[in-house]
Amino acid sequence: MNNRFPNSEIRVVLIGVGAIGCEIARLLLKKRGVRIVGAVDTAPNKAGRDLGEVIGLNEKLGITILKDIGELNARADVAIHATTSTLSKAYPQIIELIKKRLNVISTCEELSYPFIVSEELSRNIDNLAKNHGVTVLGTGINPGFLMDTLVIFLTTVCQEIRHIHVERVIDAAKRRLPFQIKIGAGLSVEEFKEKVSNGDITGHIGLKQSIAMISNALDLKLERVEEEPITPIIAENEVRSAFITVKPGFAAGLFQRAHGIINGKAMITLSFKAYIGASEEYDSIVIDGIPPVNEKISPCIHGDVGTVAVIVNMIPRVINAPPGLKTMKDLQVPSAILSDMRSFIVGKP
Amino acid sequence: MNNRFPNSEIRVVLIGVGAIGCEIARLLLKKRGVRIVGAVDTAPNKAGRDLGEVIGLNEKLGITILKDIGELNARADVAIHATTSTLSKAYPQIIELIKKRLNVISTCEELSYPFIVSEELSRNIDNLAKNHGVTVLGTGINPGFLMDTLVIFLTTVCQEIRHIHVERVIDAAKRRLPFQIKIGAGLSVEEFKEKVSNGDITGHIGLKQSIAMISNALDLKLERVEEEPITPIIAENEVRSAFITVKPGFAAGLFQRAHGIINGKAMITLSFKAYIGASEEYDSIVIDGIPPVNEKISPCIHGDVGTVAVIVNMIPRVINAPPGLKTMKDLQVPSAILSDMRSFIVGKP
Repeated sequence: MNNRFPNSEIRVVLIGVGAIGCEIARLLLKKRGVRIVGAVDTAPNKAGRDLGEVIGLNEKLGITILKDIGELNARADVAIHATTSTLSKAYPQIIELIKKRLNVISTCEELSYPFIVSEELSRNIDNLAKNHGVTVLGTGINPGFLMDTLVIFLTTVCQEIRHIHVERVIDAAKRRLPFQIKIGAGLSVEEFKEKVSNGDITGHIGLKQSIAMISNALDLKLERVEEEPITPIIAENEVRSAFITVKPGFAAGLFQRAHGIINGKAMITLSFKAYIGASEEYDSIVIDGIPPVNEKISPCIHGDVGTVAVIVNMIPRVINAPPGLKTMKDLQVPSAILSDMRSFIVGKP
Repeated sequence: MNNRFPNSEIRVVLIGVGAIGCEIARLLLKKRGVRIVGAVDTAPNKAGRDLGEVIGLNEKLGITILKDIGELNARADVAIHATTSTLSKAYPQIIELIKKRLNVISTCEELSYPFIVSEELSRNIDNLAKNHGVTVLGTGINPGFLMDTLVIFLTTVCQEIRHIHVERVIDAAKRRLPFQIKIGAGLSVEEFKEKVSNGDITGHIGLKQSIAMISNALDLKLERVEEEPITPIIAENEVRSAFITVKPGFAAGLFQRAHGIINGKAMITLSFKAYIGASEEYDSIVIDGIPPVNEKISPCIHGDVGTVAVIVNMIPRVINAPPGLKTMKDLQVPSAILSDMRSFIVGKP
C-alpha cells in the first residue's frame, strides 16, 4: 500500500470499444478507485459519440470517443487495449500507447505469449516499454488463464510430470453470435472446410501461445508446436442457438488440438471444442505426474465474462510490475479485485 | 537467468529429518542444480548418523546429521525447515536460521500466514529477514496451496464474489499412521471428544491461516475467523486401513469447518474431512460469483506428496523474492521445477 494514488483514482483509457471493450467499461464503472478518462475507437458509428451512450447507459459519461490514439491527451496510468487478436495489427497501437507512457493490458490473443509469433516485435515492445518505464501484458480468460497460467500454477503440486492434457469444451449456444459464426456453426461440411482454408474460420487463437507459455514456465525445451487442422464437429441431431439452427450432418462448431513437442514427443496437449449443443461444458487439466492431478471446472468459465474480469483484475498487478513486456506467469499470483483498486498498488520496484 | 550459481549448485540444509524431511531429501537428490549440504535433527536416533542412512538409501551421503542448528557451518542458500506445526515452536529456529543468512522455507502450518497467530513474532521475523537480506516462507500443500493460494488464484476470473466454499475430503486410509491417529480414527466417540478437549487431537492446522490469507489477498475486511468444534465422523459400517479397524459407531476420522466473517457474515467457508473409508476424495472450490466457479480436483492431492513438491518447487521463488517474511500470495506465480533449478533463479531485486 503506498501513496501513489492518494487523491486521484487509477486512470484508464480504453482502446477499442467493441463487445469486450464495452463490457470492460461497464465493469470499470462499478469498481472503486479506478476511473475511465478516455476512449478510442475507429468505427465511424462510435468515434465522436459519448462513451456512456455507446456502452448502453442511460447517461452520458462526458467522455467523447476519439478516432485515433494520437488524439488522446488525458493523463492516464493504464490503457486497456481490445481491438485485435493478432500481434501484427496490435503492434503499432501498442507502440503508440507505450510512447504515451501508458501501461498496457491487451486482449490481443497473440500478445499473451508473443515471442512465438515474432521475436523481433516482442523485443521491440519490451525495450520500448523498459525505456518508458511501463509494463505491457496480453491476457484474458484464454489464452491468458485457463489453458496456460492455471496449468502452470497447478504444476506446483507435482514432483514429476510426464504429460499435461488440457481441454476446453464450450456450448457455443451460450456465446455471442460473432463467436458462433467464428466457429462455423450451421455450415455444411464443404462450406466449413472452404472457410477454414480461406481463413474465414480462424477458430480459437491462442493454443500455440498457451503451449509456449507453459513450456517456458516449466523450462522445457519446446521443439515445436504441432497444430492439427481445424475440423468440424458434426451435429447428429438438430441443435440450435438463439441465432443459428444446425441440421443433422452440418457443422455445429469446431475441434482444435495442438501439441507441445518436447524431447521428440508430445508432452503438452491442448484440446479446444466449441459447438452448439455441447452436453457438458468444462475446462479440465489432467497432469500425468507425481502426484497425478485431475482438475475440472464445470461448467467452463464463460469466455467474455471471464476475459473482462481477468483484464480488470490485472490492472494493479501491471502497475506494480517491473517495466517491460510481461506474460501472466511473470507476475505475482493474481486475484479478484473486489475493494478499492488502489489498495492493491505497491508501486513499481 | 543470471550467473549467481554459475559453477555451484543451489545449496540446501535440512532442518528436521522426520517423515516429511526425509521425503524432501529424497526429492532433492533427484533434482538438478541443487545439493543438500547439511542436515539437523534433534532426535537421538538420528543426530550423528549419515543422512543417506536415515532417509533409507543404500549409500552414505557424507552428511552427518547435526543435533543443533548452532552446529551448522556449511555455506548454504536455503534452509528447509520441517520440525513443527506451531509458530511459537518454529520461531526460535527460524530466527537462528535467518541469523545464519539462510532463506527459509518451512512446512510449519502456522507460518503459512503467521500474522493471525502473532503479529509481534511475524514482525520480528520480517524485520530480521530484511536486515539479513533473506526471505522466509511457510508453505505446503495445505495450508499453502489447495485451500488458500489456489482459491486466491481462481478468483482472478471473477468480476464479483458473494461467497467462497472450499472443501477437502481425504480418505485417511491412504495416509501415514500418525495422520490416522491425529484424526482420531478408531476411537469411541467419548475417547474422541476427550482427546479433542485435552488437545491430543488437533486435527488439521491451517484453516484459520487459509481464511486469513484469502481475506488479505482479496483486501476483504476480515472481522474474525469462526472455527466450529472438531466433530467425529462416525463409521456406519466397519471400515479399515492397513493399521486401524473402525467398528460401526466409532470415529472413522474428523470434520472441521471454519468461516471467515466479513461485514457480519460468513463470506468464506472452509470444510475439512479426513476419515477412513471416504468414498470420494477431492479438493473442491465453489465461488458464488460472476461468473460462478465450480472447480474440483479429484482425487484430492495427496498431502505428503504434494507438500514435498510445493516445498521443493518454491526454492527458486524464495531465492528470487525480496527479503522479508512472505506468504504464497506475495510471490510470482509458482510452477513445478522439472529442469535444472538454477534456470529459475533471477536473483533478488
